[in-house]
Amino acid sequence: MVGPSRFMSLLSSFELGIVDKLRETPGLTAEQLGEAAGTKPDVVEQLLFLLVKEGFVAHDEAAGTYRLDALADVPVSDLNRALAYMDLIKVTALRQLFYLTESARTGTVVGLKELYGAEGTLYDAVADHQDLNDSWLKLMNNVTANIDPWFFDNIDVPAGSRVLDVAGNTGLGAIHTYRYKSSPGLKVTTFDLPDKETEALANFKAEGLEEHLSFIGGNVFDEIPKGFDVVLIKHFLDMFDKSDVIRILEGVSKSLEVGGQVNILVPVYPEDIKDTDNYNVDFFPAFFIGCTMGQGGPQKLSTYERWLEECGFKVTKAITKNASEIPPDVIPVQAILTATKVA
Amino acid sequence: MVGPSRFMSLLSSFELGIVDKLRETPGLTAEQLGEAAGTKPDVVEQLLFLLVKEGFVAHDEAAGTYRLDALADVPVSDLNRALAYMDLIKVTALRQLFYLTESARTGTVVGLKELYGAEGTLYDAVADHQDLNDSWLKLMNNVTANIDPWFFDNIDVPAGSRVLDVAGNTGLGAIHTYRYKSSPGLKVTTFDLPDKETEALANFKAEGLEEHLSFIGGNVFDEIPKGFDVVLIKHFLDMFDKSDVIRILEGVSKSLEVGGQVNILVPVYPEDIKDTDNYNVDFFPAFFIGCTMGQGGPQKLSTYERWLEECGFKVTKAITKNASEIPPDVIPVQAILTATKVA
Repeated sequence: MVGPSRFMSLLSSFELGIVDKLRETPGLTAEQLGEAAGTKPDVVEQLLFLLVKEGFVAHDEAAGTYRLDALADVPVSDLNRALAYMDLIKVTALRQLFYLTESARTGTVVGLKELYGAEGTLYDAVADHQDLNDSWLKLMNNVTANIDPWFFDNIDVPAGSRVLDVAGNTGLGAIHTYRYKSSPGLKVTTFDLPDKETEALANFKAEGLEEHLSFIGGNVFDEIPKGFDVVLIKHFLDMFDKSDVIRILEGVSKSLEVGGQVNILVPVYPEDIKDTDNYNVDFFPAFFIGCTMGQGGPQKLSTYERWLEECGFKVTKAITKNASEIPPDVIPVQAILTATKVA
Repeated sequence: MVGPSRFMSLLSSFELGIVDKLRETPGLTAEQLGEAAGTKPDVVEQLLFLLVKEGFVAHDEAAGTYRLDALADVPVSDLNRALAYMDLIKVTALRQLFYLTESARTGTVVGLKELYGAEGTLYDAVADHQDLNDSWLKLMNNVTANIDPWFFDNIDVPAGSRVLDVAGNTGLGAIHTYRYKSSPGLKVTTFDLPDKETEALANFKAEGLEEHLSFIGGNVFDEIPKGFDVVLIKHFLDMFDKSDVIRILEGVSKSLEVGGQVNILVPVYPEDIKDTDNYNVDFFPAFFIGCTMGQGGPQKLSTYERWLEECGFKVTKAITKNASEIPPDVIPVQAILTATKVA
């Protein structure tokens, strides 16, 4: 019940610079911290009650001073990753979730419309609103940087393959594919909406990979281009309700020859939904329905396997990233599914 | 980190009527629940993942049906009380907390200004905005109904006393005082801003108590009326920073003769701030600073005792309501302080 208050008390303690100040100078009073943060000392005392309760910060009552407790042991790089998540949740979700019920009923992101006058999805709105873009991109870059090595380590891209990165945005996935799975004759094509083409081609050129990488403009729900051996679908299927996931998988199936491969990277719910290590359940339903798409959300790995089989694939690999290998502040527990077109 | 998402997934499951529908008819599918809720079945499945994780709802995977699990055992009256809190947090806090850092810096409720164009406090804004008023009043009435019997059981109001209820709003506290502490000659006066007078007097009349109850208009920070034996300060001190709490206590001290009594009802933080039974720490700092006042928040009982002593009182009683007597869904852990003016 007090989730939103706890969330913002903690984040605000960082935003006000209180935590950084204590890292720099342990043993400051509420007066000194208030001066640094630009607040009354009363505010510092109030916000730090929670951080003291949680053992993040220690309070010497006799001296009236504070110092970092558990937070002193957290590497700044880990903290920054957690703070990028918290900023994403604050900027793209906190206010928007007020409208979750209306979003659920209408299948649209009511919060984006109410707060930003935006009619589409978060992916549309980031283009027009710098605050959404800043908060979103920072996290997406983090997620991609952390998960792509694991994805490419666990998929097979035969030498000289023609690879299609479905919903590949402005080409980062294609670039990563080329870098991680390089082979003579490897060609990677980004497939996304036509308005991504200019930036994708510029990105390929900036990397010096314009000979090996290309772009095809189109809509995944119309027709998926033919002529590829391997299809990648990363960070995408979880955005849609079942009927659209099936349309995408059927489209991929239609585009491939028998024997062609699809490799999917997607967050999944645990098979035992009560598994407490996996926070996807706690986060994604409200996030997709209320904040980004007005629909969608991850499924269990077994559900994606079943849907792939229904669309003419044989699943040859289905693995979930081990929660123990994921820092506790990272929400998505990701999975890889590899499947071969059989009919 | 996922606090806001969890909060709204749970609340939205109630708002959509999914929980009520399952109470009425156990064993429904996502399709049937979606039809009742006016959503796609996909949305029902997504939101219920969390309720299944938490054991509130059970899912029969083979049959694809849901029924209430732990929620089946919760009396509806308890649920309604918890939902009143959740609605209060949603309406008065969720979006507003986005601006907590700016509120902390400016000492104003930035969220109310941004979302409602309201310049003052939540207490001002409820008068102009029905949604805030509905959500706020429902809870306040709940809180008062639940805590006032305990308060009046634990304070002494000598027969025939003249009682002043400081910041008594529209007279409910005066009415309760008369009902709970009735004695020949007892007179109770509500002291609050002059614009509360008409409604207070109407309330006294509606109760048939106009002979015993009266109203004085004024501002607690200017001068507190003299001529009273017992002063009550309920649900008020936690709204202010230290300097204003001291001004109020000094004002009460000045208004009383030596031997006069003050009885305070206020939520408190536990003496051991790490006590996990007490959620005041998790909720109130962000709520007062970011959502209602732009300042304030409860203190420890020992802090209020110290401040009373600094203002010329001797504390004769200081008790905190036992957390085990408070339903787990009720946030405020309240305390009573009784003190006698000594100098």
